[in-house]
Amino acid sequence: MSISLPERLLLGPGPSNVHPDVLRAMATPLVGHMDPAFHAIVEEVQEGLRELFGTRNRMTIPLSTTGSGGMEACFANLIEPGTRVLTGVAGVFGGRMSEVAHRYGAEVTRVETEPGTILEPSVMIQAIERTRPQVVAFVHAETSTGVHQPVEAIAAAAQQAGAFVILDCVTSLGGLPVRLDDWQIDAAYSGTQKCLSCPPGLAPASFSDRVLEHVAARKRPVVVWYLDVSLLAGYFGGDRVYHHTAPISAILGLAEALRLVRAEGLEARAERHRRAAKRLIAGVERFGFEPLVRAEHRLPMLTALRIPPTVQKTGEAAVRARLLEHHGIEVGGGLGKLAGVIWRVGLMGENAREEVVDRLLGALEAELASL
Amino acid sequence: MSISLPERLLLGPGPSNVHPDVLRAMATPLVGHMDPAFHAIVEEVQEGLRELFGTRNRMTIPLSTTGSGGMEACFANLIEPGTRVLTGVAGVFGGRMSEVAHRYGAEVTRVETEPGTILEPSVMIQAIERTRPQVVAFVHAETSTGVHQPVEAIAAAAQQAGAFVILDCVTSLGGLPVRLDDWQIDAAYSGTQKCLSCPPGLAPASFSDRVLEHVAARKRPVVVWYLDVSLLAGYFGGDRVYHHTAPISAILGLAEALRLVRAEGLEARAERHRRAAKRLIAGVERFGFEPLVRAEHRLPMLTALRIPPTVQKTGEAAVRARLLEHHGIEVGGGLGKLAGVIWRVGLMGENAREEVVDRLLGALEAELASL
Repeated sequence: MSISLPERLLLGPGPSNVHPDVLRAMATPLVGHMDPAFHAIVEEVQEGLRELFGTRNRMTIPLSTTGSGGMEACFANLIEPGTRVLTGVAGVFGGRMSEVAHRYGAEVTRVETEPGTILEPSVMIQAIERTRPQVVAFVHAETSTGVHQPVEAIAAAAQQAGAFVILDCVTSLGGLPVRLDDWQIDAAYSGTQKCLSCPPGLAPASFSDRVLEHVAARKRPVVVWYLDVSLLAGYFGGDRVYHHTAPISAILGLAEALRLVRAEGLEARAERHRRAAKRLIAGVERFGFEPLVRAEHRLPMLTALRIPPTVQKTGEAAVRARLLEHHGIEVGGGLGKLAGVIWRVGLMGENAREEVVDRLLGALEAELASL
Repeated sequence: MSISLPERLLLGPGPSNVHPDVLRAMATPLVGHMDPAFHAIVEEVQEGLRELFGTRNRMTIPLSTTGSGGMEACFANLIEPGTRVLTGVAGVFGGRMSEVAHRYGAEVTRVETEPGTILEPSVMIQAIERTRPQVVAFVHAETSTGVHQPVEAIAAAAQQAGAFVILDCVTSLGGLPVRLDDWQIDAAYSGTQKCLSCPPGLAPASFSDRVLEHVAARKRPVVVWYLDVSLLAGYFGGDRVYHHTAPISAILGLAEALRLVRAEGLEARAERHRRAAKRLIAGVERFGFEPLVRAEHRLPMLTALRIPPTVQKTGEAAVRARLLEHHGIEVGGGLGKLAGVIWRVGLMGENAREEVVDRLLGALEAELASL
């Protein structure tokens, strides 16, 4: 084997570092995607994802695509030309939802908020009442700002208006409680490379029976054959009908990751994320980093930090490059409007540990003392 | 690590068994998808894929999806409502192309042929002249029948008519010579789990500059944001602009697989596939299996065998189940019209070896002697 890569501590917006057991699971010699032994693993993964998503949806599956492809799948199934869609835009990923909906021909109304703040439920609810959307879409954990969006009131208003609700859980799943059924979410997607600490490559997703009924009743078929849930239901339902070849090794990795999550317990895991974030914020204060988001709306797994003048003077990208080169630590820069304004520090999954925070603080000390 | 799976020799239509070095590469601890160390690997993979595809296309990339998603990408970028598309349908996968084109709103003309036979170039050429398509799409190695489709004359006629040509290379890439530039192919896709002997999960694909220009000039954007080549060009071009998170581990596996292909040489690899197929066909004759496809149109990596009456009497699926249970060997059943009529035996990538054939023949002997 000739691949050789530097060791990295991945404290950006994802991927996070992968547990060695997950890496070993991915290196298991293959079985076929139609093999009964593999189908048993797929079932176990579906059940594990139902637990994580807080749902009994039958169509809770690892989509054969990355998290962004999971977003694509939710919109492809629910949007047709002329569908009225309301999107909540609290950052880059809410903006993306709007763009994707637009490409499917939706009439999109965007509710925007300042990066670093939540979408005010009252504002979203008014917009729902005003525009009577057929689909409402927003982000649970906005990866571009580190904001933890309250979900329940908005979803309830959307349901009352008869709309489907799409929720982006890319960064929240496995690090924050997600309860699709309690919250009345119809379609949700995530990625494996954040709080589940798997490599990127799969999009855990869940679709309510109401979505399946809607798709079955559509006059024109879902444009994207690859992501059509009515076809995917053949393979991920009881019959295991061939649709496409599932990414077997990635699913083995996810199965192992879900076992690790279950062994730890969701509440303990969420608590571990909270503790790590707290230590980070306390620890970076002395370097002049301040959180972008007010305390009650902060995500535990992703902290947006305003870059202090000392770091700005040297060039924030240059300082990040030094952290990578001298210490093997990756932290994320800002995206969109926040490029050059914030750093994004991810303490996700395996990396949500106080000793990991201390390693970052030590590296910052070494790099920033000389500025 | 708690995943435990039976050992399998994968002689169906894919996946094939993965080289241990590729499995080890996939288990390498992660680096980030924006890490310069990873970008160097992505470049190496792009260059390796160019060699395999026989092209200098800049946009030769591992798409973050499976082979079927690669098909989706080619159609999503080139088809708009009203686009005239001619598809060659020599089996299930040509049929799929027609379905996918139809979903994007194309006016589809299908040229069909009996399963097990090629699309006659003269018939395709007449259809091109008659229907003046804007896109012509067909399959190089039809995985449902084991037919090796001649490409050049059809592609030349399509180009002369001003059409884009889409070629499915899922099963051919890495086992048969593919020469996109010589053949004048505009868009081609493959999978990693066939002759490249990687796990499924990536779609090697290549798009000509003409496709990129066409997409840039489209009035309405590509419907599928995730697969829009004009956006993907940002990450896979020189600038490495973030679009979605690349499936890092799968790409490390592919990088290793491409190194193995290069070390062996494409011609030696193709010859190894031919030798293995020859031994298979000679060896199964005594059990009454006959090839579906006439000799000059047979694929080396996938052989379709008519199921003999002795096996039919016991139930062909039951015999395949015994091969799996007693010998750990997977062979494929028929798809579509050929379900219950043929077996599909894949000798792909790592499995295209005479000793592998002999193991299958021994297992068949053991199972069929008692019928």
